Amino acid sequence: MDAVSDLKRQREEDDDAAAAKPACLSSVIPGWFSEMSPMWPGEAHSLKVEKVLFQGKSDYQDVIVFQSATYGKVLVLDGVIQLTERDECAYQEMITHLPLCSIPHPKKVLVIGGGDGGVLREVARHPSVEHIDMCEIDKMVVDVSKQFFPNVAIGFEDPRVNLVIGDGVAFLKNAAQGSYDAVIVDSSDPIGPAKELFEKPFFQSVARALRPGGVVCTQAESLWLHMDIIEDIVSNCRDIFKEGPHVDFRVPVNPLDDSSSKSNGPLKFYNSEIHSAAFCLPSFAKKVIESEAT
Amino acid sequence: MDAVSDLKRQREEDDDAAAAKPACLSSVIPGWFSEMSPMWPGEAHSLKVEKVLFQGKSDYQDVIVFQSATYGKVLVLDGVIQLTERDECAYQEMITHLPLCSIPHPKKVLVIGGGDGGVLREVARHPSVEHIDMCEIDKMVVDVSKQFFPNVAIGFEDPRVNLVIGDGVAFLKNAAQGSYDAVIVDSSDPIGPAKELFEKPFFQSVARALRPGGVVCTQAESLWLHMDIIEDIVSNCRDIFKEGPHVDFRVPVNPLDDSSSKSNGPLKFYNSEIHSAAFCLPSFAKKVIESEAT
Repeated sequence: MDAVSDLKRQREEDDDAAAAKPACLSSVIPGWFSEMSPMWPGEAHSLKVEKVLFQGKSDYQDVIVFQSATYGKVLVLDGVIQLTERDECAYQEMITHLPLCSIPHPKKVLVIGGGDGGVLREVARHPSVEHIDMCEIDKMVVDVSKQFFPNVAIGFEDPRVNLVIGDGVAFLKNAAQGSYDAVIVDSSDPIGPAKELFEKPFFQSVARALRPGGVVCTQAESLWLHMDIIEDIVSNCRDIFKEGPHVDFRVPVNPLDDSSSKSNGPLKFYNSEIHSAAFCLPSFAKKVIESEAT
Repeated sequence: MDAVSDLKRQREEDDDAAAAKPACLSSVIPGWFSEMSPMWPGEAHSLKVEKVLFQGKSDYQDVIVFQSATYGKVLVLDGVIQLTERDECAYQEMITHLPLCSIPHPKKVLVIGGGDGGVLREVARHPSVEHIDMCEIDKMVVDVSKQFFPNVAIGFEDPRVNLVIGDGVAFLKNAAQGSYDAVIVDSSDPIGPAKELFEKPFFQSVARALRPGGVVCTQAESLWLHMDIIEDIVSNCRDIFKEGPHVDFRVPVNPLDDSSSKSNGPLKFYNSEIHSAAFCLPSFAKKVIESEAT
């Protein structure tokens, strides 16, 4: 690319549209969305924007949806990409089926966050599940997902879903003790509205709400960038989850029968082999996590 | 970030230094290096540049080394990041130990490409290896690596290494039949000098140069972006590698004893568990690759 001609074009674009552009799209690359955050200083990932479809400001965060050139539609919260149509399957399937396939016959599931509905779509594949509570803090995320991401928000259509718009921390404090088989924490990054979902009191509430032998799965950022965050979560959970029967997460005792979930389309990413593989860690991470066990 | 003030700064920088900047660093984000390629249209990854340490043009490609803000020193060929000090361990360890730990007692190894020396560093951890040929087309890559990446280029210091500067395709054609236990193809992308290393005649030469039961491991781009390339390679290799004893890649029969390789520092990424896990594929990839088997 030619920086000088880009620059000229951007000057004109800025003259025309500076005030009209949302903050996150005052793109450092003209015509591109660039994801920058103190969570990953010194690096940026950028997607070429075809068209901005939605921009709003909820009580909690900036919400943007754009049509990208090569990743389908993209949902952005506070400047950070939450999902793209092209690859959302990996995240939604793994955060859901790793816990639910690790225990026999999960019946009652709680999802904290996950307002796009993708985790609900995946939980709904499990025929043993009778009830799904979801507590999402930001109604705008749910509404935007229903409008722009129908293949993700399809999860809301399942009759077993009970959607609560509210604070996940408070919801868990009020939940009946020992009432859930699994809790899935589908949060954004630990700066902004999801901050408390990474802290010890939250995991204490999770432990209280789970039945003995129940499981929790949480979004815990990147092995490459956030071993400090992961180490804290593991250390807190080792303190808190001391009782209850042992769950061997490497063995999916409740394998997913793909034929049972045709209404939500076939699984794209998850299978029993990749379930077991997901618990094999690179040496640098294994070292940190195993040292927490002592 | 504030696009308008960035823009002002870039205008001044451009006035001062437009002609002095190498093409790849006419950065779309001022002060950042942005990796853009027809190999991944519509997306870009960017790293903040502290200082450009080297820029040159070899007979084959543009070569840049810069100090990044958060990924250590970075080697760039033809505008594409080849390695960063922060995460090179994952690539070098996996492309080397997946093949070498899958066969008993590898003695003679050929590396095609890999001019930074990182694969040599990893091959050298195997005490059974007696001889390592490397054929790298671009001497400038070797020289730059020795100058700026001593912890990577340390691989060249091993007395078992025989470095040949030349064309890997021609080297393989002239190699003695059945002479190698393993061939490792550490290439750049299939546009530019490495193009032929992705094509069927090259793999025919590899098969000829390997002993029965010998193994090849090649850089094959991304499961998310390049299933067409991967499908071609798998299909070609299924046609070509029909004879010889079966190798079960999931079982590392030659596990790496970390204590045997202290001179090159401890392994950071590879271990026997992650070896097996590396052969578990997401369903979308498994489907394509298994359909090739019929």
